[in-house]
Amino acid sequence: MIDPARNGKSPAFDPANLWILDHDDIAALEIGAGILGTGGGGNPYVGKLRCRQALEEGLTLSILPHQAIADDALCVAVGGIGAPVVGVERIREGREGLRCLRALEDHLGVSVDAIACEEIGGSNAMEPLLVAAYAGLPVIDCDGMGRAFPEMQMTTYSIYGHRSTPSAMCDVHGNVVIFQHAASELWHERMARACVVSQGGASDLASAPMTGAFIKKFGIPNSYTQAISLGRAVKDAQRTHSDPIAAICKQEKGRWLFSGKISDLTRHLRGGFVMGDIKLDGFDAYHCQTGSILIQNENLVFHREGIMECCVPDLILVLDVDTGEAITTEMLRYGQRVAVVALPCNGLLRSDAALSVVGPAAFGFADLIYTPLEAER
Amino acid sequence: MIDPARNGKSPAFDPANLWILDHDDIAALEIGAGILGTGGGGNPYVGKLRCRQALEEGLTLSILPHQAIADDALCVAVGGIGAPVVGVERIREGREGLRCLRALEDHLGVSVDAIACEEIGGSNAMEPLLVAAYAGLPVIDCDGMGRAFPEMQMTTYSIYGHRSTPSAMCDVHGNVVIFQHAASELWHERMARACVVSQGGASDLASAPMTGAFIKKFGIPNSYTQAISLGRAVKDAQRTHSDPIAAICKQEKGRWLFSGKISDLTRHLRGGFVMGDIKLDGFDAYHCQTGSILIQNENLVFHREGIMECCVPDLILVLDVDTGEAITTEMLRYGQRVAVVALPCNGLLRSDAALSVVGPAAFGFADLIYTPLEAER
Repeated sequence: MIDPARNGKSPAFDPANLWILDHDDIAALEIGAGILGTGGGGNPYVGKLRCRQALEEGLTLSILPHQAIADDALCVAVGGIGAPVVGVERIREGREGLRCLRALEDHLGVSVDAIACEEIGGSNAMEPLLVAAYAGLPVIDCDGMGRAFPEMQMTTYSIYGHRSTPSAMCDVHGNVVIFQHAASELWHERMARACVVSQGGASDLASAPMTGAFIKKFGIPNSYTQAISLGRAVKDAQRTHSDPIAAICKQEKGRWLFSGKISDLTRHLRGGFVMGDIKLDGFDAYHCQTGSILIQNENLVFHREGIMECCVPDLILVLDVDTGEAITTEMLRYGQRVAVVALPCNGLLRSDAALSVVGPAAFGFADLIYTPLEAER
Repeated sequence: MIDPARNGKSPAFDPANLWILDHDDIAALEIGAGILGTGGGGNPYVGKLRCRQALEEGLTLSILPHQAIADDALCVAVGGIGAPVVGVERIREGREGLRCLRALEDHLGVSVDAIACEEIGGSNAMEPLLVAAYAGLPVIDCDGMGRAFPEMQMTTYSIYGHRSTPSAMCDVHGNVVIFQHAASELWHERMARACVVSQGGASDLASAPMTGAFIKKFGIPNSYTQAISLGRAVKDAQRTHSDPIAAICKQEKGRWLFSGKISDLTRHLRGGFVMGDIKLDGFDAYHCQTGSILIQNENLVFHREGIMECCVPDLILVLDVDTGEAITTEMLRYGQRVAVVALPCNGLLRSDAALSVVGPAAFGFADLIYTPLEAER
């Protein structure tokens, strides 16, 4: 089903290199992508159900190693765009992403060789797998964030020079919009965000093709391998009744920041984003401490006793303290018992160019200074 | 400069039929299109200045009689989209409409033969003339509203079956968006409106080509002739010190509804529209009466003493009582002395199909029953 042949060109990849995912891999991906989603990236449970259905329909969900794609291959990143809180209530029709891919191919008069992932976090890890399965293509084992971020220009692809237009956006109603040219990556985000809000808040978008050479250089490597391994580590801890939070910290070189109960929660939908603030009352080692987390779709900044301790682009995870599984921002509830864990982000997100797009100032926290969390991975 | 030749096809029109506009025509069009704009359609003064500049640059502003276009000609309607209150503050760069036309031609792989007008009201009477001048094409003497309306689906083109996608939208920043497919004309409006708001509230849009045969059947005929004649009638009345309001009523079979002073005015920008309410205290024949007008970019409903007397799709004009010139909704001020005049709309706007799109219920006034103002024109 996966056919790397291209008209007159050498193959885009060797099918022998493909990693074909099964139900266990998807179950692990749900947990791992959920954790790396740092609260966002779309609800991973809904994404898992859709992947399971695809497997049951006989479709092939396949991953191509990051460095195994040909330099001249055309790679298109596809994913969901919108507010997670909408995506979990309004289930996708299913073929939005494929329609995006086809609209983009038709518009450009090209045939795409492989699918790329914008963000490994949440259901946006699954969306490229589904589109690729429908199209008979693999997904490259990398992504543009190494986590989830709320806005489109916040990918290593855009940060390191890819122009993401022309792009194609499709929704559940059958609407198709082509963003032919954006004056900047931020303009692309603004227009696409306005459009997805008008479409109801949960659509798909396929952005302009990248070459294999570009994606091998600027994609964050091995994202799917990482997410699935992380999910397996959590499942192993659950099965052996060992501490899943400790397992996550060990696997990902993370730091356990806080354990606490959600004592207050403000959250609302504004401009197509979930904006909010979590207040935490500590327990166990953090007894008598308070913590808080600011949200824009994802967890952005962690404060302890009013002092900032970790912020974007490093990953701030809000996990169920008992199971180790992620609690996405739309699933947060008063009284939940959570662990807060910080993971170091990929080095591609720590350059000056990257920090101007994904550092705290880019989210409006101009007074916060980003201090990298321990060593880079 | 105007060249009707097309590759291998018979000419789209006979250049001998063209009416070449001069400075006097544009001055009359400013007044006439302003009046027919029923408060909206973009500020006609800004439109006039841009047309004057085009004439001074040696460009040709030309009108083709409505029935003189070939049946198989490709006609594209181009106009401004946004809130009038933005359009008057943020002057256009100037070539947005031409970029729309070129983006649409490139996208479809066609060459357009003539420009059509969406709405004869306000500066949207001028915008097609400018685009046509830059492209070396004429504008057909008709429009899709016979006035101005706030939303894109409110044209006789859309009402009588034209699908206005694919369309192209361009803004001052250089952004280009193609609405490739909309599930309905209303979806096109919703997405385009969201997009124009994200672009700052004043962009241009070129909608999918119509055939000459279609536009001859469903365009509202002779709109430019009407607007320029109306403008001349007002200028004649001003010059001869006769009553310009009476001249407008005579020329357009209108009814003088009210004379009064604006005693209260609420107006705000919401969702890319100017929404508002004008309160009037009567004078002269209307002494001791009160009137009010509801606004969405345009004047929608006139009440006298709380009872509805005229509503969309008939035209409600708010005119300077001394000069007869239109006061557009963004130029309304407390204390202005105005005449309110009602004109009957074109019969194409009075069918059941049309009233479902441009009648009072389409604007949220579900309890108002449209009663046509006197005879159709």
